[in-house]
Amino acid sequence: MSDPTVAELGEAALIARIRHRVPAAPAWVPVGIGDDAAVVEPTRSALDVVTTDTLVEGIHFDRAFVSATDLGHRALAVNLSDLAAMGATPRTALLSLVLPPALPATDIDELLDGLLGLAGSHGVALVGGNITRSPGPLVVGITAMGAVRRRRVLTRDAGRPDDELWVTGALGAAAAGLGWLRSGRGAPDTALDACVIRYRRPEARVRVGMLLGRNRSVRAAVDLSDGLSDGIRQITSASGTGAIIESASVPVDTGARTWFEQQGADPVTAAVSGGDDYELLVSVPRAFRRRFHAMRRLTHGVPMTRIGKLTKEPALVLRTEAGDRALPEPWAHFGTGA
Amino acid sequence: MSDPTVAELGEAALIARIRHRVPAAPAWVPVGIGDDAAVVEPTRSALDVVTTDTLVEGIHFDRAFVSATDLGHRALAVNLSDLAAMGATPRTALLSLVLPPALPATDIDELLDGLLGLAGSHGVALVGGNITRSPGPLVVGITAMGAVRRRRVLTRDAGRPDDELWVTGALGAAAAGLGWLRSGRGAPDTALDACVIRYRRPEARVRVGMLLGRNRSVRAAVDLSDGLSDGIRQITSASGTGAIIESASVPVDTGARTWFEQQGADPVTAAVSGGDDYELLVSVPRAFRRRFHAMRRLTHGVPMTRIGKLTKEPALVLRTEAGDRALPEPWAHFGTGA
Repeated sequence: MSDPTVAELGEAALIARIRHRVPAAPAWVPVGIGDDAAVVEPTRSALDVVTTDTLVEGIHFDRAFVSATDLGHRALAVNLSDLAAMGATPRTALLSLVLPPALPATDIDELLDGLLGLAGSHGVALVGGNITRSPGPLVVGITAMGAVRRRRVLTRDAGRPDDELWVTGALGAAAAGLGWLRSGRGAPDTALDACVIRYRRPEARVRVGMLLGRNRSVRAAVDLSDGLSDGIRQITSASGTGAIIESASVPVDTGARTWFEQQGADPVTAAVSGGDDYELLVSVPRAFRRRFHAMRRLTHGVPMTRIGKLTKEPALVLRTEAGDRALPEPWAHFGTGA
Repeated sequence: MSDPTVAELGEAALIARIRHRVPAAPAWVPVGIGDDAAVVEPTRSALDVVTTDTLVEGIHFDRAFVSATDLGHRALAVNLSDLAAMGATPRTALLSLVLPPALPATDIDELLDGLLGLAGSHGVALVGGNITRSPGPLVVGITAMGAVRRRRVLTRDAGRPDDELWVTGALGAAAAGLGWLRSGRGAPDTALDACVIRYRRPEARVRVGMLLGRNRSVRAAVDLSDGLSDGIRQITSASGTGAIIESASVPVDTGARTWFEQQGADPVTAAVSGGDDYELLVSVPRAFRRRFHAMRRLTHGVPMTRIGKLTKEPALVLRTEAGDRALPEPWAHFGTGA
């Protein structure tokens, strides 16, 4: 039994194995893994922020393209991205594993490596969770909790007409990386390889989210887990506005642009529709611009690009050299939720 | 499309349907369902308590025996039971749904009915969640959060030799109810029907858990989600003790006793091994007995029974008229976790 399955190992041994890998709980976690529930000291003068997101094999990932370590990283990253979009500082996480009995137990070790690696780099403590077997696919659920001061909460519904829309990073890399993986082609060039890494190990904009909240430099915020087009829809529908996006301003990742062009696709359309970017989309009112530009100097190299503005008119418009057209639809309608 | 499937309805419409059923968030939930994450004001001078538990179709429930309404109730109840075992007051919940595309959307309505009915009776606000489709079975995950004062936290590892062991309610009802359902027999008598209800709609000991913490009348506590035998093992292994259970004292549910005897099973063994009871097991040191008995008068009719004690010797003993024997093994080793 050099590499037992999770069924051979059993629940108690699996939990013991996980506990063994998890660092000792910090002082503000009086009760961590191993009791009926975890006990966590709230941040003084702050509100709790809590989110949950679940990855399902065959829907959100394909084990042919995503290692167990990638999966552990990704499951936490998608939740940290949600906290970042609220302006929150992440603190703790719970892990829910729904496991096919034949899964090798070493996959759980690797999943923990990915999860705990990312958790450690953001000071997040894994404080508990749940393991169950399943006749179905591998399902990895995370609940992530953080803290934010009351006046620093960023919501989707706070956008107002004439707010500028800004986005972090570059778009389309994850979609291009996944496209290349699915194509079964040979070794990618450096730019495309970076796209594959962005797909496999998404980087949540934790620090930028905290800065945005702390400096009250933006009004509305949302993360782009389902792509820019979906993010625009979330902010405008919650805020009761429309939006105009300047096609020429959309920051398309360099490797992704080349890949999309090779596929005969329009890079901007592909980048706007594509998902899994985990960048932040924010709305910046005129009165906040000075604070916003001061904040931009603190992002440690994460670029921010102005891509358009919110409008009183409800339409969602992509403004191109050839004229205005409707914003492309999001790529998926029944994937991960908020 | 009078009764569409969840796939036909799509994620956005499903979320809208759920939001429509959820009562308005209380004042201490500044941001509820519909943003990237929920924002919750912590209870003043209290610690956060957080737990997650997941129910998988084919493992934890069979749709032939459990309606969608039962399932919504049960998914929350198992989590409230974990909070009760910490002495916590429940406050909020997140719902994670992993849905087969062919599931009728009305099942989600009914699931919400069961969940929100129980939530309402305990003042719990559903503040967010996540919906995804799946090629596999229906999976319902809940994260429940509550609050407890620092000196009132009940843990598994606080038991000491000579502490008395007490248990709430009566045991074996859920196991008997499930046994009867699986047997496919005709209409049950009244006592057995009560067992079926206990199985379908478990009642978490929320109020008793809060009283236990508030009155500092017990030392260790655990819930019996996986049965008494498992609960004894959890407390003794965390506390570094053994235990002696008096067979004649174990409170076996009346209907369950009759059912087990009809099956040719020993009722105490079946009730001790059986799961899904969601009662609380607590350890009471001599010095706490006066407070404990005062607290018992406040449980609104929930009986509490002394069933044995913790011991310095590590063995787990069932003391019967015919002599001592090893405590029966728990019924399952890879079910729901903590």
